[in-house]
Amino acid sequence: MADDDLARPDSGPRTVRNTHPAQRPHPDRLLPTEPRVRDIARGLYAHVRDRPIVSPHGHVDAHLLARDEPFSDPATLFITPDHYVTRMLHAHGVGLDELGVGREALDEASARAVWRRLCEHWPAFRGTPIRYWLDVELAEIFGVEQRLSLQTADETYDAVAARLAEPEFRPRALYRRFGIDALATTDDPCDDLASHAELRDDPSWQGRVLPTFRPDAYLEPAVPDWPQRIKRLGEAADVDTGSYDGYVAALEARRRYFIEHGATATDHGHADLGTEPLQTAEARRIYAAALAGAATEAEATAFRRHMVTEMARMSCDDGLAMALHPGIVRNHHRPTLRRFGPDTGHDLPVRLEVVRALRPLLERYGTHPGFHLILFTVDETVYSREIAPLAGFYPSVYVGAPWWFLDTPDAIRRFRRAVTDSAGFGKTAGFVDDTRAFCSIPARHDLSRRIDAGVLAEFVAEHRPDEEEAAEVLVELVERQPRVAFKLGDVAGAGATT
Amino acid sequence: MADDDLARPDSGPRTVRNTHPAQRPHPDRLLPTEPRVRDIARGLYAHVRDRPIVSPHGHVDAHLLARDEPFSDPATLFITPDHYVTRMLHAHGVGLDELGVGREALDEASARAVWRRLCEHWPAFRGTPIRYWLDVELAEIFGVEQRLSLQTADETYDAVAARLAEPEFRPRALYRRFGIDALATTDDPCDDLASHAELRDDPSWQGRVLPTFRPDAYLEPAVPDWPQRIKRLGEAADVDTGSYDGYVAALEARRRYFIEHGATATDHGHADLGTEPLQTAEARRIYAAALAGAATEAEATAFRRHMVTEMARMSCDDGLAMALHPGIVRNHHRPTLRRFGPDTGHDLPVRLEVVRALRPLLERYGTHPGFHLILFTVDETVYSREIAPLAGFYPSVYVGAPWWFLDTPDAIRRFRRAVTDSAGFGKTAGFVDDTRAFCSIPARHDLSRRIDAGVLAEFVAEHRPDEEEAAEVLVELVERQPRVAFKLGDVAGAGATT
Amino acid sequence: MADDDLARPDSGPRTVRNTHPAQRPHPDRLLPTEPRVRDIARGLYAHVRDRPIVSPHGHVDAHLLARDEPFSDPATLFITPDHYVTRMLHAHGVGLDELGVGREALDEASARAVWRRLCEHWPAFRGTPIRYWLDVELAEIFGVEQRLSLQTADETYDAVAARLAEPEFRPRALYRRFGIDALATTDDPCDDLASHAELRDDPSWQGRVLPTFRPDAYLEPAVPDWPQRIKRLGEAADVDTGSYDGYVAALEARRRYFIEHGATATDHGHADLGTEPLQTAEARRIYAAALAGAATEAEATAFRRHMVTEMARMSCDDGLAMALHPGIVRNHHRPTLRRFGPDTGHDLPVRLEVVRALRPLLERYGTHPGFHLILFTVDETVYSREIAPLAGFYPSVYVGAPWWFLDTPDAIRRFRRAVTDSAGFGKTAGFVDDTRAFCSIPARHDLSRRIDAGVLAEFVAEHRPDEEEAAEVLVELVERQPRVAFKLGDVAGAGATT
Repeated sequence: MADDDLARPDSGPRTVRNTHPAQRPHPDRLLPTEPRVRDIARGLYAHVRDRPIVSPHGHVDAHLLARDEPFSDPATLFITPDHYVTRMLHAHGVGLDELGVGREALDEASARAVWRRLCEHWPAFRGTPIRYWLDVELAEIFGVEQRLSLQTADETYDAVAARLAEPEFRPRALYRRFGIDALATTDDPCDDLASHAELRDDPSWQGRVLPTFRPDAYLEPAVPDWPQRIKRLGEAADVDTGSYDGYVAALEARRRYFIEHGATATDHGHADLGTEPLQTAEARRIYAAALAGAATEAEATAFRRHMVTEMARMSCDDGLAMALHPGIVRNHHRPTLRRFGPDTGHDLPVRLEVVRALRPLLERYGTHPGFHLILFTVDETVYSREIAPLAGFYPSVYVGAPWWFLDTPDAIRRFRRAVTDSAGFGKTAGFVDDTRAFCSIPARHDLSRRIDAGVLAEFVAEHRPDEEEAAEVLVELVERQPRVAFKLGDVAGAGATT
Repeated sequence: MADDDLARPDSGPRTVRNTHPAQRPHPDRLLPTEPRVRDIARGLYAHVRDRPIVSPHGHVDAHLLARDEPFSDPATLFITPDHYVTRMLHAHGVGLDELGVGREALDEASARAVWRRLCEHWPAFRGTPIRYWLDVELAEIFGVEQRLSLQTADETYDAVAARLAEPEFRPRALYRRFGIDALATTDDPCDDLASHAELRDDPSWQGRVLPTFRPDAYLEPAVPDWPQRIKRLGEAADVDTGSYDGYVAALEARRRYFIEHGATATDHGHADLGTEPLQTAEARRIYAAALAGAATEAEATAFRRHMVTEMARMSCDDGLAMALHPGIVRNHHRPTLRRFGPDTGHDLPVRLEVVRALRPLLERYGTHPGFHLILFTVDETVYSREIAPLAGFYPSVYVGAPWWFLDTPDAIRRFRRAVTDSAGFGKTAGFVDDTRAFCSIPARHDLSRRIDAGVLAEFVAEHRPDEEEAAEVLVELVERQPRVAFKLGDVAGAGATT
Repeated sequence: MADDDLARPDSGPRTVRNTHPAQRPHPDRLLPTEPRVRDIARGLYAHVRDRPIVSPHGHVDAHLLARDEPFSDPATLFITPDHYVTRMLHAHGVGLDELGVGREALDEASARAVWRRLCEHWPAFRGTPIRYWLDVELAEIFGVEQRLSLQTADETYDAVAARLAEPEFRPRALYRRFGIDALATTDDPCDDLASHAELRDDPSWQGRVLPTFRPDAYLEPAVPDWPQRIKRLGEAADVDTGSYDGYVAALEARRRYFIEHGATATDHGHADLGTEPLQTAEARRIYAAALAGAATEAEATAFRRHMVTEMARMSCDDGLAMALHPGIVRNHHRPTLRRFGPDTGHDLPVRLEVVRALRPLLERYGTHPGFHLILFTVDETVYSREIAPLAGFYPSVYVGAPWWFLDTPDAIRRFRRAVTDSAGFGKTAGFVDDTRAFCSIPARHDLSRRIDAGVLAEFVAEHRPDEEEAAEVLVELVERQPRVAFKLGDVAGAGATT
């Protein structure tokens, strides 16, 4: 959609008058700077610019699309729930309370005030992907091309708010406009997936929204309310979880329930990647102790590592792809957690060890036909040293997309340059937006396509693959790789890599 | 000053005849190579080339400027005390004794011999920043544009020596010529700061030389002569340090003394970043044991980590910014230490853990208004994984400049590409030269400005910030960020970022 | 040889008709993309393109050149023994049994079938150095310029097979054609080095094939058959290894035997870099326990670390250079090990610690005149943080070439950009192909020359060294550095760096 709009000085009533021309996203943005390489990149990018979006992992709520109600206001859409945005404002001295974090709903005055806080601190976002995404979203979705500032705060707020009242800015309309082909959510094993069922049974809905089985809290006996969770799990599965065997059966049952509701994958995020299995008797013993609140920290960790390998075992049985994204310290600043809750911007990356930690799991299931293990990281040092070498041997292992703090122009470039040597393109898992900011989905996927086009153009200019092969690779990165890795089913028209 | 000189084939009596034109520093050196990006970079660099130098952390001795005596000779100025230079010569088989290390003063013959050793091994420095700095210093400060070699050794020695005898090559004159606006030194808590006071009280001195409170050895009971140090601390503070409470009071008193002498920051370099606090009773117990020489290694470490958090507590009280630069094994080769003393080139970087280690400190003080915590590293892996994400949440945290082994063209580029995604520009601390080589200060800051101009030019060419914003950012990196992070006070004419 | 061939549309009967022109290796491949920088790089590369190959570390069998028999078939030459190739096919679902791994010799039908598996999965190699090496080998050695695919499988197989029957494709002829000046093998301390002696005594052989002393299994009491190994070592050395002192004497004797057969270096790959020495009494005690099968795991590790330092001690005595390449978990997937043996693609890199681990060894021997310690890594994070800073102080330490998973275009670029700041060029060890794929040797060295030429061209374009100096550096990287680091003796015509 971009180029024509960009070429037209006046694209009609939906465009707020642009007082600063450079604010308009440039059609060549993020492409390589050397003119000949940029030409190649332009050509490659044109192949995939308008391809459908495959989003196999993220945090959009299925409810949003099931209900299809208008978004309430610009601040709630762009700021308050998006910890990418609020954390940076917080870093510049803005309290999370000033941004509506932890509050129910914002009234108009509050929403406008929150918007003004963003506009006031807009220079803090220079050079960041957040600034990039928001600029693109505002211009390409909402037709707002003014640079944000205190001077333009009210005008831009009003422009976005006016759009949100229009029917074509409701979630389902945007889903269509964004060209989303499949959108995976992230769900609690006890979730009844009612919104997913509602969408599936709605004949007017043509999209595809899949649940993802995310059992973290049920695998970690150290979680404070673990016995209560396990009880709920039993109720949801209609299985007695009073014993370890019942607990395992309940997890298996809930996985089946998810599969019946369209799930193709599970998703796991623990502090480390440990996968050492326990003898069944030992697992039963710790389970009983944990239910009684008597498991030690070491036992709880051992049990969780055992259960991660059990999840791989179940994946070999039921076919769900397994995504692992460890290495985050959650809720680093507990005073903020206590006041504002989780997901408020202080989950922080730590160093990761992959090769030794995954060995028990991979020795058991790493060559199992059809098993898929997708490894994400926020620790770039494991790209060339551990993850790519693993994916270059184990048929089950896929290199997860640059994730979270790394889904940015420079980090994606480093990713491709680091993993391609040992894993090629065909063992990478395609882009993952991992976002709860619905309107950022197209900007994020487009960013990834631009950067991959640029990297491939550089490869072509270095006479590694030729341009025709590079175009084939890029299409595969955009469509085939996420579909294959996350088992989303065939894509029409995409050639097979191997 | 460079360009005009460079354009002139003969710049007068101060220039040694150039037998090798390429030796003359090129006006475009270190700028990006793609012509259009270089053009942008040239424009950006021109904005900051002649801006004053803010040097908030380094190892120049205030005495040097207080006394303002001529530098003794070229070897003592450029080689003997600079472990950047001597370590590389040592790596190529030159003994530190041949370089005058550990000796009092060099006579003329010795100084000339040391200079010859450098000239003889000049090719060993190819591609290193040391070669770059020295080339620029020799050409731009001393007008020596000949390439160093055994053939040119005497001639270049004589040329530099002749300059050093001239009044405009005395420290204060060079301070003015270099355009230094503020220069922080690094000082022992017991130092009486007499040279700082002398400068402050000298009406003929217009510069600004600030002390920095560096209490490392006083916080580490494992240091061999710790009880004696603590005794001296008590004497300096006029507080009885026989008890833990007196010790804390003495540190607080010395901080006040430093503040009275212009200090705005403290500086800390320990083996790790641990910050777990102790109960006061436990701190008192270990302190007493340590004074009696009876603390275990584990207790000494626990005490030091506690005291680092105490330093943060004091910073919240008295407003000194706190700079942390951990992760160095000091004096790796103890035979060299025994023979030549510390700071002789074998302090070596080790891996760092930041997120978990700093959690206790940051949970307590990370959101304290006005607290500034500047994190340096010699471990590049923590840029994108830990330091930038921390600075992108905690208002107190600033990303320290690429430090020591990383204050080089390529490492600074990697730094900006790694931290900007998560921390933007406004949470970085500006350049730090960290040098004891006075004459290298302008070359080092200029290098940093060139590289930052280049990175920003690449951003502009990728259509991220526009050129006008990039120029604003660059000025902020050069002036505003170090002033803000180290609390050096307002800078005239610099716009606020946030 | 490349350019002229490339310019000629029809290079005679040895060339299979090219159905896809882009497959022909481009003369500018891997050079920088910016036109002016590419021009500089072309000029630099031309200086070293045809220089002899110095290969100081690899896994070609001396037997191959001693016997000089024709290679059996294309699959055995290019696929079956090369775990770089088989691991990637395995990652895409091809069983190692389908590739002939672990079998004795392939009959024609099997060899052809294996070749077809490679051709079928050729797109999996896009962007990898394996694809690059094979493309170049097929085109430049065998004149095969068709892109591999199921369609071209038989035709290309036949073309290569036909060449292999010709006398000029025998190992010695290829050795000459490749321009190899010296080729080091990797050998068991008990090896009688008969092939090396045979070559040395053959008046018709003009090449230089050196053995390398690789004692890993003899230093690790944890190896299952260790007592038997030690017995064999005693027999080979004709020394009673029933005591620790005899064991040390046997190792010293075998080192002398290797030196007598031309060895200039030892080679060591353990799980970590630990070098803590033991008291002799303790070493004797653990040795006796280990021979009796009664050493604990901790004792076995302590003994091995002690012996690594003993190896350094012996190197100071007998002058063998010492190459260390730690940080690999061998045989990660034990089911594959059991079925197919070692070196089957699942040796995987792990994180490395260098500075602390090597301290005991370096404090003892790091400044010993003539001692050379060459440090390789598969963990890129230690380049700028640990290895380059060590090489920038210790005269003995050389930075090993980018190794194994890192001997690729992008990783070599990152290597130069990471180590040059602290270690310059003159403390790096030159390129190491480390290959068992004989025909890949020229492609690998050429790749390294192209990338180094490109990096140096970028340095020149940034006005760091000038073009003349860069050319000098490049020649040194190709010839002088490996010769000096591995003590291969003088090279005619190469200027000294220091």
